[in-house]
Amino acid sequence: MAETLETFLAARTARPADPVALAEPVPLEALPTPALVVDVAALDRNLRAMQGFLEARGVGLRPHAKMHRCPVVARRQLALGAIGVCAAKVAEAEVLRAAGIERILVTSPVTAPQAMERLAALAARSEDVRVVVDDAGAAARLGEAARAAGTELAVLVDLDPDMGRTGIARGAPALELVRTVVATPGLRFTGLQQYAGQLQHLTDAVERRARSREAMEAGLETRALVEADGHPVDVFTGGGTGTFDVDSEIDGVTDLQCGSYAFMDEEYGAVHQGGSDRFAAFEPALFLLSTVISRPRPGAVTVDAGIKSLATDAARPVPLDLPGVRYRFAGDEHGVLIAGEGAPLPALGDRVRLLTSHCDPTVNLHDWLYPVRDGLVHELWPVAARGCSW
Amino acid sequence: MAETLETFLAARTARPADPVALAEPVPLEALPTPALVVDVAALDRNLRAMQGFLEARGVGLRPHAKMHRCPVVARRQLALGAIGVCAAKVAEAEVLRAAGIERILVTSPVTAPQAMERLAALAARSEDVRVVVDDAGAAARLGEAARAAGTELAVLVDLDPDMGRTGIARGAPALELVRTVVATPGLRFTGLQQYAGQLQHLTDAVERRARSREAMEAGLETRALVEADGHPVDVFTGGGTGTFDVDSEIDGVTDLQCGSYAFMDEEYGAVHQGGSDRFAAFEPALFLLSTVISRPRPGAVTVDAGIKSLATDAARPVPLDLPGVRYRFAGDEHGVLIAGEGAPLPALGDRVRLLTSHCDPTVNLHDWLYPVRDGLVHELWPVAARGCSW
Repeated sequence: MAETLETFLAARTARPADPVALAEPVPLEALPTPALVVDVAALDRNLRAMQGFLEARGVGLRPHAKMHRCPVVARRQLALGAIGVCAAKVAEAEVLRAAGIERILVTSPVTAPQAMERLAALAARSEDVRVVVDDAGAAARLGEAARAAGTELAVLVDLDPDMGRTGIARGAPALELVRTVVATPGLRFTGLQQYAGQLQHLTDAVERRARSREAMEAGLETRALVEADGHPVDVFTGGGTGTFDVDSEIDGVTDLQCGSYAFMDEEYGAVHQGGSDRFAAFEPALFLLSTVISRPRPGAVTVDAGIKSLATDAARPVPLDLPGVRYRFAGDEHGVLIAGEGAPLPALGDRVRLLTSHCDPTVNLHDWLYPVRDGLVHELWPVAARGCSW
Repeated sequence: MAETLETFLAARTARPADPVALAEPVPLEALPTPALVVDVAALDRNLRAMQGFLEARGVGLRPHAKMHRCPVVARRQLALGAIGVCAAKVAEAEVLRAAGIERILVTSPVTAPQAMERLAALAARSEDVRVVVDDAGAAARLGEAARAAGTELAVLVDLDPDMGRTGIARGAPALELVRTVVATPGLRFTGLQQYAGQLQHLTDAVERRARSREAMEAGLETRALVEADGHPVDVFTGGGTGTFDVDSEIDGVTDLQCGSYAFMDEEYGAVHQGGSDRFAAFEPALFLLSTVISRPRPGAVTVDAGIKSLATDAARPVPLDLPGVRYRFAGDEHGVLIAGEGAPLPALGDRVRLLTSHCDPTVNLHDWLYPVRDGLVHELWPVAARGCSW
């Protein structure tokens, strides 16, 4: 049965997103490995901690759903008071919308005509879908796509905090782009985004604080420039798990896009060790359960989790409950645990928990999460937007 | 509707694996990006080249399906004369079986009781499913699982070529394990596996040849030891895309497990540059199509493909048709193209093709492949075993 690419893609983004209940709870020991496990109690503590912290400061939380790609988690964040969620890509936003989530900010510029069409169609059928722009030509084409879809698209101008990834230069260039957006039929200017990704993982807390404050203040100068020109800035959004405590104390920042705080990982653990006491509020809620499948030589065992189960872009995963033991990637499906002097190693067939080095791309390797409470898995959570990078 | 974990997992591995025909062919320019594209003509040339090369030497090809995780590609390999396929994990083998492929060697030891049960059940319903073992205790439990499933499981003893990942030491320890397997009810000893993964990417062709020959000859000494002990070795399997030309000229090697030759990648391109003229037969057949979404600063543009679309464990992806331009990872969904002096950069909205650094984990990020012929995509190929690492 032939179908069109459009119907194929639409079906892909409408895949089931609800929890799958299990007839009988399954103990951790009975899971097939590698298994990506969420400690639900720790997750909920993390969610409440960030929500409470930002609410106390009068700043909104717009968590980045690119981290978990899981509508079940997004709904928990919204139920606790998040003002909406972020998506990195249009397909990710489509999955969230199909799961009933209507307040979505797409945080990457969109330039392909097909993606603009899909975004406009998504906005037309949603309560509040927004997107960032950083180029006048792209803004013009986006306006055309919105008009063709019979809708008006809410737009934020993306500012580059000297990161060199996306965003327009602050000051006059940004103001000029705001004026273009305001003058473009089909678009509605609603604010500014500035995400300083390069500062999130600075381990020196003093330096991180100083540089994030400096970047935010430069962004807020542009905000003032834009408002002085007669364009209200309803939203000034940015920040992440590495700088939420700094960014939320700066007047003019309306909401933060933190993502990793929900699951945490080894990278942000290192940021924590850099000295910001705010991180004490967050704890690892995600780990990969693996099994020892070989004992190739003294002082080392091999587990069944490698490049296809754990992200490789950051530090190495860390074996939990195994002091003195290090993990080394050993191919697509293997990792080797190496014992330091005198450190005991697990036996063949034993289960080993690994703290992931970087949660976002690790979650993106898995089709579902195993949420665990008191050692039991009662349901599965589909990572419904897994792979939805288009 | 509650289901059991077993029925959930079984449904997951029985997902559709056939090509999805499109009502209208789609030109490359109309694909949503990032899109993982297969040049079908190049793929077929690669498949025929390896099959023909090994057939001429009287050596079997048992291609490793972990590379593509795509039954459509596996069927093409079998149609050309492959003697069976390899799978790294039980779930991968289950997907291949659900797609009608019955000759599968599982190349990693299995130690978890649940995985042994599934493997035995798979063998019971298949023409020829085999697995490797490298431990006497695991062999005993595997025999129990096979008997419980009312079947006999064909087993290869996995030899460690001083790689330290899986496998038992050659010589006396391997012979002892063969005797154990032979004596274990439920198991049938059929041969030896030795995969020297650490040699596949040596860029010095002379060193690679010498070391692979040395490793293979040590493995074949064990083969002789086992046969002298009265146990026929029907299969001696190993090798890969990096050493196929060396390994296939050694008497006693029955088949090779090459995987990457089908799609190729930047890593094996570097091996090629190391001087083995055999690699001239293989060409890149896989690339990631991306779109320029931002121009953050002079001399750089940002594309919509990052850590979630391209493997990060190896070298960097390489932009094609853009001399003097380098790719740098810039987060989950972004890469920055950096122009060398005087090198022209693509414009906003332009499409950029990237040669992937490592094909196996790159394919594993994508749910389907876009096969292209003469610039048109007529169907989609599900990466049906994507994520099936358990």
